[in-house]
Amino acid sequence: MHHCYLEDFELGQVVETTAKTLSEAEILDFAMSYDPQPFHMDAEYAKEGPFGGLIASGVQTLGIAVRLIMQAQIFAPDASLGSPGLDELRWLVPVRPGDTLRARFEALNARPSKSKPDRGVLRYAFGVINQRDETVMTALGTQIVKRREADT
Amino acid sequence: MHHCYLEDFELGQVVETTAKTLSEAEILDFAMSYDPQPFHMDAEYAKEGPFGGLIASGVQTLGIAVRLIMQAQIFAPDASLGSPGLDELRWLVPVRPGDTLRARFEALNARPSKSKPDRGVLRYAFGVINQRDETVMTALGTQIVKRREADT
Repeated sequence: MHHCYLEDFELGQVVETTAKTLSEAEILDFAMSYDPQPFHMDAEYAKEGPFGGLIASGVQTLGIAVRLIMQAQIFAPDASLGSPGLDELRWLVPVRPGDTLRARFEALNARPSKSKPDRGVLRYAFGVINQRDETVMTALGTQIVKRREADT
Repeated sequence: MHHCYLEDFELGQVVETTAKTLSEAEILDFAMSYDPQPFHMDAEYAKEGPFGGLIASGVQTLGIAVRLIMQAQIFAPDASLGSPGLDELRWLVPVRPGDTLRARFEALNARPSKSKPDRGVLRYAFGVINQRDETVMTALGTQIVKRREADT
């Protein structure tokens, strides 16, 4: 699946993206701005904390998933019209400094809008997998996507 | 509610946090790393795009909610033991450069763990409100939280 409009998604087909290695500096930097909890932003404290070391904010893991899926160009450059939300976001395994993460994307359902003929609603499952092939995060996404017909 | 352990949350009581104004530079910076879609990272393109201008990544809005809630110190400094996930995350209104955002937090349920006597599970509703009092995001959060008894 590449440069898809609504009717191009192949339901049930799984795309795995390229990988991104997350540094301790990136974890600390994100935590300072968006998730200032001790086990996300203080490596010394984190050693004695609930995870036995520094872990990435789950919001950062979500952001990495979105980045990798967008970089994979599954969507056509102008196809995404935004997202009304996410469901069942689950953080399953801690993400630690040096972990190499890739994303997984699977289109579940693509339904044309009844009120707006140029677009529709894509439902998809996505997740993040680390270098040990552990699934560290899963979620169900919804995206408003342009239809191809409306472009021609 | 301030510096809460599991048994301290007052169910149904709403906390509103301080506010944070989001700059165009912060929106662009976040989008480059975590949500590289044109309407999040290209102000010129975004003018002609689906939102008529640049908007913040929904992941960034979520991060700001987490930041504001953590900064409000609703949780005791060592009370959070991480989050297994979020549900029903909804982005309702676009967030634009210069918007001033505050978060809303409401504890819904606090249940001691059956297997681990030092902790429990907090369910809470949270959201983000802009300077026009529009609710721009809502979600249901789950947090593993220490019990006070286990500390003494």
